[in-house]
Amino acid sequence: MTTNRQWLLASRPSGVPTPENFRLVEAPLPAPSDGEVLVRVHYMSLDPYMRGRMDDSKSYAAPQALGAVMQGRTAGEVIASRDASVAVGEWVEAPVGWQQYGVVPAKAVRKLDVSRIPLSAYLGVVGMPGVTAWVGMNAIIDPKPGETVVVSAASGAVGGVVGQLAKLKGCRAVGVAGGAAKCEAVVGEFGFDACVDYKAGRLADDLAEATPNGIDGNFENVGGAVLDAVLARMNAFGRIAVCGLISGYNGQAQPVENFRSLLLNRLKVQGFIVSEHLPLWPKAFEELSALVADGRLKYRETVSQGIESAPQAFIGLLAGRNFGKQLVKLV
Amino acid sequence: MTTNRQWLLASRPSGVPTPENFRLVEAPLPAPSDGEVLVRVHYMSLDPYMRGRMDDSKSYAAPQALGAVMQGRTAGEVIASRDASVAVGEWVEAPVGWQQYGVVPAKAVRKLDVSRIPLSAYLGVVGMPGVTAWVGMNAIIDPKPGETVVVSAASGAVGGVVGQLAKLKGCRAVGVAGGAAKCEAVVGEFGFDACVDYKAGRLADDLAEATPNGIDGNFENVGGAVLDAVLARMNAFGRIAVCGLISGYNGQAQPVENFRSLLLNRLKVQGFIVSEHLPLWPKAFEELSALVADGRLKYRETVSQGIESAPQAFIGLLAGRNFGKQLVKLV
Repeated sequence: MTTNRQWLLASRPSGVPTPENFRLVEAPLPAPSDGEVLVRVHYMSLDPYMRGRMDDSKSYAAPQALGAVMQGRTAGEVIASRDASVAVGEWVEAPVGWQQYGVVPAKAVRKLDVSRIPLSAYLGVVGMPGVTAWVGMNAIIDPKPGETVVVSAASGAVGGVVGQLAKLKGCRAVGVAGGAAKCEAVVGEFGFDACVDYKAGRLADDLAEATPNGIDGNFENVGGAVLDAVLARMNAFGRIAVCGLISGYNGQAQPVENFRSLLLNRLKVQGFIVSEHLPLWPKAFEELSALVADGRLKYRETVSQGIESAPQAFIGLLAGRNFGKQLVKLV
Repeated sequence: MTTNRQWLLASRPSGVPTPENFRLVEAPLPAPSDGEVLVRVHYMSLDPYMRGRMDDSKSYAAPQALGAVMQGRTAGEVIASRDASVAVGEWVEAPVGWQQYGVVPAKAVRKLDVSRIPLSAYLGVVGMPGVTAWVGMNAIIDPKPGETVVVSAASGAVGGVVGQLAKLKGCRAVGVAGGAAKCEAVVGEFGFDACVDYKAGRLADDLAEATPNGIDGNFENVGGAVLDAVLARMNAFGRIAVCGLISGYNGQAQPVENFRSLLLNRLKVQGFIVSEHLPLWPKAFEELSALVADGRLKYRETVSQGIESAPQAFIGLLAGRNFGKQLVKLV
C-alpha cells in the first residue's frame, strides 16, 4: 500500500521560520468521494504568502491551522477520479498543499496542456504568480508607452513577469533585486532596461541613475527601504500596486518614511490580492500562455528535490535565496 | 491717495515659521489694465498649503517667490473694472493674496451671491476647503450608507465638511481633533457621531471605541501617529483620501508604521489636490451652496482682525489654534 507523506504546521514561528515549525508525517493514501479526484503531486509551489498564514494574526486569509497539512498549490497527475469531468491521467493544477498525494473537488482543479508549456510553469509564469503580475500591471498600474515601471523582487516569480509585461507595453522596465547575479539575469535574460542591486549599498543613487525620468508605476513586493527609495522618485500621478511586503513578513518593522510622496505627487497606491480579481484570470492565462509558448516571456525556476526539502526551500525563499519561481519536485 | 499694504515672503522658514519670515510693506494702489479688475479685499484666506509654498523643495506647486506678495485666495469687492463682464460693486472671490488691494484678470474671479450666504463662507465651506472635502468624499472615498468614515483635523475648514457630508450619505462620521473643546463642537455642532481627542493620550483605544465596526473611509489631513491609528482600524477594501499631512509641514519626520495595512486590507490610498479636479467644482459649489443656504451644513470661522495679524494667525493655524476656517478680516 502506498503511503502519503505530508508536512504539517507544527508550531507558529516567532520571526524567521525554522525547520521545527514543520513536521513530516506519513498517512494512508486518501480515496476520492463522489465529485472528487486524487492527485499525485509532481511539483509543489512555495510562495511568500504562506508565511502570513503561519501566523494567527489578522490578515486577509484565515491562518493555517496548527497540525494541518500546509496549504498551497501543486501541479500533478490525476490518478483516481470520481467525477466525469476529469479523467485519470490528466495533468492538473490543484490546491493539494505540502504533500505527495491529495484529494480535491474536481471543480477545484485546472486542467493543463503540457504539450507546449512545461508542467512546472503552470505554478509560476502561467500560474498564480504570473496572473498576479498581470493583474497588478493591467488593473492597477496600467502604464502608458514611454513610462517607467519599477518592480522590486525583480528576479522573483512575480517580479520577472512584471518587468517583461512592462517592456511589452513599451515602458522602461527597472528591477530591484538582491545581488549582482540576480540583477545581471534580470537585464540579460528577462530584458529589463536596468536593475538595481539593493545589497550594493547605494540604493537611492543607483535607483536615480536607473530612472532618469522618474517613476510612473511601481509594483511593490518588498516594502521598507526599497519602497522608500521608490517613493522618492515617483512622478506626479504615479501608481503603486502593493502586492507584497516581504521585508516585513518575519515581523520586522518597516516604517515608510516618504509617505508624503503620496500627497506631493498625487499617487494612487492600492493593495491587492490576486484571488480577489478572479474575473481577470482567464484573459491573463490566455495572454501569458501565448507569450510563454512563443518564447516571448522568460522565466526561471529554483527547484528543490524531494518532499523532505520543502521547509528549507521555503525558509530560503523568505531569505531571497531563490531565483525565479521556487518549486519542490516530488516525482 | 490710498496706499496698499502687503505681506511679502521675507525669508524661507526652517521648521516652524516665525514672524520674521514675513515683511509688511506699503505700495501704491495698482490700476487695472484691459481685462483686469481691482479688488478691495474684505477677507483673506489662510490655508495649510501655504506652508509648503514657503519652502523651495519639490512640491506640487511652484514655491512662493522670495520678496513677492504671499499668495492666496481672498473675498472682496470690485472697486475698478476694465472688463465688461465684471462690474464695480460686485462681490468676488479672487486670488489677490496677503494684501488689501489687488489687480487680477477678470476671468480669474468668481462672482458671489451674498444674499443667502455670507461673504466669508465663500473662502471656506463654499470655497476651496469645502470643495476639497466634497471631492475627497465623492471622487475618492465614495462611501456607502452604513460605512464608517473618519476624518482628521475634524474641526478644520475641510474636516468639518467631510464629516457632515458623510452623515448626509448615511455613514457613521468620526472625527479626530486636538482638544476636548474642539471635539465637543465637532459632535455637538457639526453632528458627527463621535470625535477622538488625539491630545488625550489614548488615541488607539479611543479610536477603537469610536469605530466599533472598523473604518471604511478615511479623509487624511494630518498624517503621522493619527494616520497610523486609523490604518490599524481599516476594514477590507477601505479608501483613504490623502488631502494633507499637516503634522509634517514644518519638516517633522512622520514615518508610517502600519503601511502593511494597505496590503492586509487591500486599501486604495490616493493623494489629491483639489485644483486638479476642476470639472467637479461646479457640482460641488452647487451642492455646498444649497446645503449652507438651507442651514444643513454648519461651519465655524476663526477671524483675526487687520492685515497686521496675518502672520500670527497663520502660525496659529499650523499649530492648530484655529477652529474652522482661518480668516483675516481687513474691512
